[in-house]
Amino acid sequence: MAAATPLVIQSRDNALLKDLRRLSQDSTAYRKQGRVWLEGDHLCSAALVRGIEPQIAVFAESFWPFAPTELKQAAAKNVLIADALWRDLSGLESPAQMGCVMALPDVAALDADAPTVVLDRLQDAGNVGSVLRSASAFGFTQIAALKGTAALWSAKVLRAGMGAHFALRLVEGLSEQDIAALRVPLLVTSSHRGEFLHRAKLPWPCAWVMGHEGQGVSQALEERAFAHIRIAQPGGEESLNVAAAAAICLHASGAGHSV
Amino acid sequence: MAAATPLVIQSRDNALLKDLRRLSQDSTAYRKQGRVWLEGDHLCSAALVRGIEPQIAVFAESFWPFAPTELKQAAAKNVLIADALWRDLSGLESPAQMGCVMALPDVAALDADAPTVVLDRLQDAGNVGSVLRSASAFGFTQIAALKGTAALWSAKVLRAGMGAHFALRLVEGLSEQDIAALRVPLLVTSSHRGEFLHRAKLPWPCAWVMGHEGQGVSQALEERAFAHIRIAQPGGEESLNVAAAAAICLHASGAGHSV
Repeated sequence: MAAATPLVIQSRDNALLKDLRRLSQDSTAYRKQGRVWLEGDHLCSAALVRGIEPQIAVFAESFWPFAPTELKQAAAKNVLIADALWRDLSGLESPAQMGCVMALPDVAALDADAPTVVLDRLQDAGNVGSVLRSASAFGFTQIAALKGTAALWSAKVLRAGMGAHFALRLVEGLSEQDIAALRVPLLVTSSHRGEFLHRAKLPWPCAWVMGHEGQGVSQALEERAFAHIRIAQPGGEESLNVAAAAAICLHASGAGHSV
Repeated sequence: MAAATPLVIQSRDNALLKDLRRLSQDSTAYRKQGRVWLEGDHLCSAALVRGIEPQIAVFAESFWPFAPTELKQAAAKNVLIADALWRDLSGLESPAQMGCVMALPDVAALDADAPTVVLDRLQDAGNVGSVLRSASAFGFTQIAALKGTAALWSAKVLRAGMGAHFALRLVEGLSEQDIAALRVPLLVTSSHRGEFLHRAKLPWPCAWVMGHEGQGVSQALEERAFAHIRIAQPGGEESLNVAAAAAICLHASGAGHSV
């Protein structure tokens, strides 16, 4: 049975539309609002697959006849937005015609025993999203983000994460001291010391620490490391992109123990 | 001895400034001009280290007293640009105060025996730059980019490449048929067939094929593969970011044979 057409937001000043714009454009607005904007079919579908029930499904008005049934039915509420207003809402170059709002998961504390990736002030949203994808792919279940890391539920990180968010326990705003709560051994990459990754016996579960793009891992976390691990770079010691280094390390840990 | 202060470009309509703006903003302008714009200290330094002699070093006028001596002396010519005009030139959010122009390397043909990364229509400049960094780090010396791949010498790919460009033989605009010229065995990642990477004996030298972000590797290249290789993903079959997958594969090939 076709759902009745929901009301259409026609005013730029509508309160919900203003909130959605903030969620889309301001990378930390989700913390104030306690809810997250998922733009596009891929993210919405990935959330549904993981059993998330959106608070609101949002569609461009002209897209309503094509709106996916699953999303319309899973959401507590459907809202349409006049096409002319939709463009302002989207952070994408080629705007999707749909999105949904989910409650920000309430995750306060670290799981001390989970296979974890610690993000030590990673700045670039694309890098953070890519690390989340790799973490999820290789069996890590928790992200521990220190203060100064790109906001995990921002639109840019969500886009780069491609749905990995929904498979992970995400804890952010942590201090270096908070990381001491982890009981899994901490592994830190190093350019000059430790065993080479491709020869190392790696513990599982473990926590890999990935550091700031320019400065690397902080001294305090370096000192907490269970082991330092080197990535062999026969082509020269130019540093790797941090998301590339993360992929290599997480694969080495995750693939080895479970296939 | 202090160099004499070079002439300052004061006009927005200056022909050189117009050319530089195009190089900075239009991702394929380097092909028309036969020269490349390197913005910022890091890229310029990386080029100098590799023995590249810039045609022109370019500085914001007020930066001239701080301009690095090596760059001033290595360049055939120094040019200053009035600070007010510099902002237009830069593609960066926090503009660097310096850049240089180098001749586009004249690389027409593939080296059939070089360890190679084949880019099969990779779209995202950040991904392409990250793959170049990983390629260089792990001892690959050649990039073979098929038509449809992001322009390798564009400002965005250069920025993400962090200097890897200067260590690699970069051949672009290739067709699938051109790839047949490679004598090194072609390796293609697959989600469903072939040996798992962490157990595979990999040939060296070799050529890894990295495919389009959405569509993957083309049928034609799939069929030329010497071997298909799977990346174990114990966390689920969500696909990895292509630059992350590349890092894992190139590390597995490069680190194993040489350390």
